Amino acid sequence: MASISGFPEFLPQGRIVEMRAHDIVRRVFELHGFANIQTRSIEPLSDLSRKGEITQEVYLVRRLHAETQEEDVWGLHFDLTVPFARYVLENSGHLEFPFRRYQIQPAWRGERPQEGRFREFWQADIDIVGQGELSTHHDAEVVMVMMEACEALSAELGLPPVTIRINNRKLIQGFYTGIGCSDPLPIIQAVDKLPKVGVQATAEILAKLGLDSSQVDKVLGFAQVNSTRGSVDDQVRSFGVTNELLEQGLGELTDLSSKVSARFGSQVVVDAKIARGLDYYTGSVFEIELQGYESLGTISAGGRYDSLATDAKNTYPGVGVSFGLSRVFVPLISQGVLTASRSVPSVVCVAVDSDETRPQAEQVATALRHRGIPCEVSPNSQKYGKQIRFADRRGIPYVWFGPVIGQVKDIRSGDQWDADANQWTPEQSDMTVQILQAQ
Amino acid sequence: MASISGFPEFLPQGRIVEMRAHDIVRRVFELHGFANIQTRSIEPLSDLSRKGEITQEVYLVRRLHAETQEEDVWGLHFDLTVPFARYVLENSGHLEFPFRRYQIQPAWRGERPQEGRFREFWQADIDIVGQGELSTHHDAEVVMVMMEACEALSAELGLPPVTIRINNRKLIQGFYTGIGCSDPLPIIQAVDKLPKVGVQATAEILAKLGLDSSQVDKVLGFAQVNSTRGSVDDQVRSFGVTNELLEQGLGELTDLSSKVSARFGSQVVVDAKIARGLDYYTGSVFEIELQGYESLGTISAGGRYDSLATDAKNTYPGVGVSFGLSRVFVPLISQGVLTASRSVPSVVCVAVDSDETRPQAEQVATALRHRGIPCEVSPNSQKYGKQIRFADRRGIPYVWFGPVIGQVKDIRSGDQWDADANQWTPEQSDMTVQILQAQ
Repeated sequence: MASISGFPEFLPQGRIVEMRAHDIVRRVFELHGFANIQTRSIEPLSDLSRKGEITQEVYLVRRLHAETQEEDVWGLHFDLTVPFARYVLENSGHLEFPFRRYQIQPAWRGERPQEGRFREFWQADIDIVGQGELSTHHDAEVVMVMMEACEALSAELGLPPVTIRINNRKLIQGFYTGIGCSDPLPIIQAVDKLPKVGVQATAEILAKLGLDSSQVDKVLGFAQVNSTRGSVDDQVRSFGVTNELLEQGLGELTDLSSKVSARFGSQVVVDAKIARGLDYYTGSVFEIELQGYESLGTISAGGRYDSLATDAKNTYPGVGVSFGLSRVFVPLISQGVLTASRSVPSVVCVAVDSDETRPQAEQVATALRHRGIPCEVSPNSQKYGKQIRFADRRGIPYVWFGPVIGQVKDIRSGDQWDADANQWTPEQSDMTVQILQAQ
Repeated sequence: MASISGFPEFLPQGRIVEMRAHDIVRRVFELHGFANIQTRSIEPLSDLSRKGEITQEVYLVRRLHAETQEEDVWGLHFDLTVPFARYVLENSGHLEFPFRRYQIQPAWRGERPQEGRFREFWQADIDIVGQGELSTHHDAEVVMVMMEACEALSAELGLPPVTIRINNRKLIQGFYTGIGCSDPLPIIQAVDKLPKVGVQATAEILAKLGLDSSQVDKVLGFAQVNSTRGSVDDQVRSFGVTNELLEQGLGELTDLSSKVSARFGSQVVVDAKIARGLDYYTGSVFEIELQGYESLGTISAGGRYDSLATDAKNTYPGVGVSFGLSRVFVPLISQGVLTASRSVPSVVCVAVDSDETRPQAEQVATALRHRGIPCEVSPNSQKYGKQIRFADRRGIPYVWFGPVIGQVKDIRSGDQWDADANQWTPEQSDMTVQILQAQ
């Protein structure tokens, strides 16, 4: 009977903010033609175990009275990528490729709860997946769509602007190969932790991986490469490293950054230390942070993968980006930074004179709803002053008195006037709940 | 890597139908001022075990690498009532009563899958809960709201009309007490199964419960009482049973049925055999069926409970009704009764001449999206015929050619005309995906 750490829940006012955020990202994704899918909450444990490092965070699901130990063992999905890969393989014969989908669902991880980490959390993912091949122009597409979603969240909810950092795995891998490191993945994972552990510790880790001091210097120097002006060509070339993969990655990176910068200017940073730890990225990688809320960490991230999944006939390359809705909105809502102007959808509370005239009040409500105006009828026939306070406590802006041709009061201003419930319309700004930002 | 029985998933076209259904019930609930909440997916197992009969269906949730057997044991919720009761107690100091909430979420039951039963399924619940007291006029309110939701699903998705059967536990209990049965609950549960097991088997069960043959006859006779004309007063009184609780129940039932019949006419049946098996109902009870799809069983049900929950200070009486979204929509979608006019939100596919003019196509798309028109840019620059087929396979109605001042083709009619992407607007009926019913 008490709240469980890591499983956030909101009061109705907070939930209105969260729903609005979900509605906004949904609208932006659909405006770009992304189709929604929902996948089941569980996957066979064997599918969830393939990403070794996450295995230990999985929540196991079994029937309480499972008849044998042999019964199927499932886990709650820990992201929306594993279920999506399974869905693509399972339905490949019925999907049109490139398949562009969004998914807004909870995911679960058995982490120790800490600031900004949840055990049940909402994610919003977009991915574009091809069958056999997928052009790199889709990399820019998913980035632009997610940046537009962030922009809409700023414009409509007052979320701070974001910064996106982009890089390219081919560039990184080409650079490391070019300086003589044959196994780039452990280096990528070490550099990925650089912002957390610092230069000194990273240098030690690199040395342990067998890099000589010149290589360590170059890796750390390369990690310093960044620019808000689109291209890092000159900076990269200053190391004098030549490699075919590096050239290809640099080309892709310049192409992506110039497209995104053309629209989002200085919000775009090319940053060579961005690597994303996961082993399946093979090209563009990106991370988004909230300006002024860097302590929340990466709120959105993604990249290009040459193979989301494979079956007997095909491989499915893709590019996608995931947005951590709970990571952003749970702290903003629970700290009161974002709140709603009322706790109910109702624009109008219809007052009730007496139990006998309740049907008359219900007629008023029906007339208002008929024209799309959310309303509720007062639960009792107490004195009008009490009914007004009832509405006020919920933040409902208007109270209606009398029959369909009656009177309406704006309880914020105290103004009251004659009105016909078949014709009167509230201010447009009152029709939906307003989202308010703390000053 | 295969579908798991009882955990339904849809292709994008089916998911559009499901989302639309969820959007419709949400809109109706909000029009009536119900506030949304979402509760976490899990509850402590001890809270889920209180309803004895459901315990064995619970899915247990634990961390894969739980460090001790003593770690908290949770289960996935099997309905939205248990979590709601817990939420009300936990947040009672922050909620305004009567508290009117809706909840649209999945629930899980470890049942053996069979027709119309799922192990992961969506429910839509509305409840009104008071602190200490709650007027009976809210019984009619929740029924009217759910019936309006069903009506909107009929009007907008072509769902068949529904029949609602209503009854009152006080009437039943008063009648049974009045004929000398001191323990009504087992009789209620026996009669609840009458439609499934038949009159003969029910008579035998009642005899085993200790009823004499005159009592059995009266119970079975009473179960025949029904009317589509609002009142069953005369039928009930013909048994000559007098009891105070019976009178109270009959009054509540007549009041409820007359209110609902005034709006929904012959869709409303007063039916004395409706009991709802659960022990917590204490007044009005109701069940909704789809006309012509009676094999789906009850698609929505609810009732009045004098105590949803209690804490040290208060008891929380309520009335609510639950709608089984998956029970209705999974069969209708998977049998192809309901489908969507396209598999993507896009109204327009912008054709691409060559890789060099892709930015021009993106400008067209930006101009259209700026005015709220969902669209996508062709992934490649194949021959126009192939790009039109690409759009057609997705059901996208329009293809755009050339720059912002270019041409648009309705690929259904083949008509093509000059258009300016800053001004042209598609037919209103094409703006959102149409839901189609099989003939």
